[in-house]
Amino acid sequence: MTSFLSARLRGIAPYVPGEQPKSGVRVKLNTNENPYPPSVRTLRALSPVPRPMELYPDPNCHMLRTAIAGTYGLEPEQVFTGNGSDEVLAFAFMAFFDSVAAPDITYSFYPVWARLYGIGYSTLPLNNDFTVPVKKFIDIRKNIVLANPNAPTGIVLSLAEIEVIVRTNADKVIIIDEAYMDFDTGSNSAIRLIDRYANLLVVRTFSKSYSLAGLRVGYALGQPQLIRGLETVKNCVNSYTLGTLAQVGAEAAIRDTAHFEQCTARIIATRERTEAALYKLGFECCPSSANFLFISHPKGGSGASSGTPHPLHASVIQTKLREAGILTRYFNLPRIDNYLRVTIGTDDDMDKFTERLAELM
Amino acid sequence: MTSFLSARLRGIAPYVPGEQPKSGVRVKLNTNENPYPPSVRTLRALSPVPRPMELYPDPNCHMLRTAIAGTYGLEPEQVFTGNGSDEVLAFAFMAFFDSVAAPDITYSFYPVWARLYGIGYSTLPLNNDFTVPVKKFIDIRKNIVLANPNAPTGIVLSLAEIEVIVRTNADKVIIIDEAYMDFDTGSNSAIRLIDRYANLLVVRTFSKSYSLAGLRVGYALGQPQLIRGLETVKNCVNSYTLGTLAQVGAEAAIRDTAHFEQCTARIIATRERTEAALYKLGFECCPSSANFLFISHPKGGSGASSGTPHPLHASVIQTKLREAGILTRYFNLPRIDNYLRVTIGTDDDMDKFTERLAELM
Repeated sequence: MTSFLSARLRGIAPYVPGEQPKSGVRVKLNTNENPYPPSVRTLRALSPVPRPMELYPDPNCHMLRTAIAGTYGLEPEQVFTGNGSDEVLAFAFMAFFDSVAAPDITYSFYPVWARLYGIGYSTLPLNNDFTVPVKKFIDIRKNIVLANPNAPTGIVLSLAEIEVIVRTNADKVIIIDEAYMDFDTGSNSAIRLIDRYANLLVVRTFSKSYSLAGLRVGYALGQPQLIRGLETVKNCVNSYTLGTLAQVGAEAAIRDTAHFEQCTARIIATRERTEAALYKLGFECCPSSANFLFISHPKGGSGASSGTPHPLHASVIQTKLREAGILTRYFNLPRIDNYLRVTIGTDDDMDKFTERLAELM
Repeated sequence: MTSFLSARLRGIAPYVPGEQPKSGVRVKLNTNENPYPPSVRTLRALSPVPRPMELYPDPNCHMLRTAIAGTYGLEPEQVFTGNGSDEVLAFAFMAFFDSVAAPDITYSFYPVWARLYGIGYSTLPLNNDFTVPVKKFIDIRKNIVLANPNAPTGIVLSLAEIEVIVRTNADKVIIIDEAYMDFDTGSNSAIRLIDRYANLLVVRTFSKSYSLAGLRVGYALGQPQLIRGLETVKNCVNSYTLGTLAQVGAEAAIRDTAHFEQCTARIIATRERTEAALYKLGFECCPSSANFLFISHPKGGSGASSGTPHPLHASVIQTKLREAGILTRYFNLPRIDNYLRVTIGTDDDMDKFTERLAELM
């Protein structure tokens, strides 16, 4: 049979998103969604359906970019918006990278984009405690992509650490993927560095902290030169990546700061409560600044070489939780194969999760 | 100043979409939108806001694909959906083309995608009457992309002509871009060839005939092998290209066949009426199977070499119409620089347009 695939597609391995099952799920903790609905103001902005849907949306998303810029004290020319932060990141890879360096354990979409666009991809190993080896990224004169907080560990780099990486690689583009930064309790966002560093691009999403995974909106913040690079890619791919509803809904969401703050505070509180419960059960958790916990039971790692995993091995726990209708995410990858990534749901969700874990012990 | 752009981006010229002006427009005939709103059923499906927006949408768009498949007597495995037909086409270029042939005058996004993805792009000139030179595309053993009806001419190839091109290039992928086919009064859609030709991909959109340019939904139809190729690209770029609202709205729209038929019939009737009025004013129109007319006044071409264009030159007419708040599209390109592309609006829109033209004569 003829293969119709282009050379660039042959043998490529796509990113695999977490399951979106249709039934049998009691507690969904596998894809880092927000357990709370979007704000009432957001829903009101979308209903009744706004503006003439028969016309194309604003290709430049002016109103939405203005609202985002205002939130961070930036100008609209420092904001790019796209169809989820994945699209924004994909466009940024195309716009700025011929090669790029990243930690060995991080968001697993990065090597997929690199492969698709023919970008050289080199990795530097995380430290044994899964922190990013900051010194290894200093002054390496390479484009760099860092998720901060990192995925799937949830561990955050400090703003000072990010700054030294950005400053010492000034002629290369540094992307800081802050999909989860709104759940950090420090003040580690690199957004405040934007006015000082022309090589810094910060990427964010409405899917997590704004409860809008279903709407598909992400954005990038940076100096106008980088934003124009992203616009060039967009205008070479798809003039209208964000529909009218996405623009209107995201604008309403980012303007509703009260709802946003209340909602992220609740998730942070539930995270701390869940972490305490997990420690009592003997689990280790990476210190999380995200809306998920990356957990492991030390006993689970024993006997792995024998072929039959220990009953507390992450893969076994994941299966048992799944049988009880509780979804979590497991990555069968080197170094992290005895870890589970568990999204923070409601307090009730997390009680069901820890109760089921207690039964498994 | 350092250029941060990757090698592939340097010197690239993006596609330029038609203006989406915010004010001063009485009649918008420049971007081939539908003048009528989406169906009441579609609006009802979107309001109140459906399903939990805090969760990711179905990455595989199962319900929407099933509805589209049902419309054409196909299986869901023969349908791919994306964020507008531009995204679907961009993905198809990446999935299937290392090189591709197209007419010299056609949708001007094709060479942009080719350039962006490093795809060889060769052109074959349209005949003098702007019809596609079918014989030149027969048995050329090249990937081919054809807009049918063609843009910006509106001229359709017959199903028999499409079939011979598809059949004689069986080991290459042939994309038929049917963005405007719903406005054809013949039965020239290549959809009915899909079960016979593994190398045929038909691309369509909800932006024109379904009055949903603001929602951003397009789709491709083909045998499962080609659809899987598109899914591979999607899963290497963005797992969730279509949000929940896009999936729900498009599904409702394609199920509302009565509204669709009524709406396309109205546009076809208005097109015929407008064409007759334009002939009376001395304009020539390409025979259109689309929701636009490609028109030229023979007198406008005289004196072009002198530097001052004739008062009936397309560029002059466009400017004068614009001053009256009537937008049309002008392409300053070889062979078509004395033509205007005029979207079919309501009868009232077209009366304003032809009345203003009459005043200019």
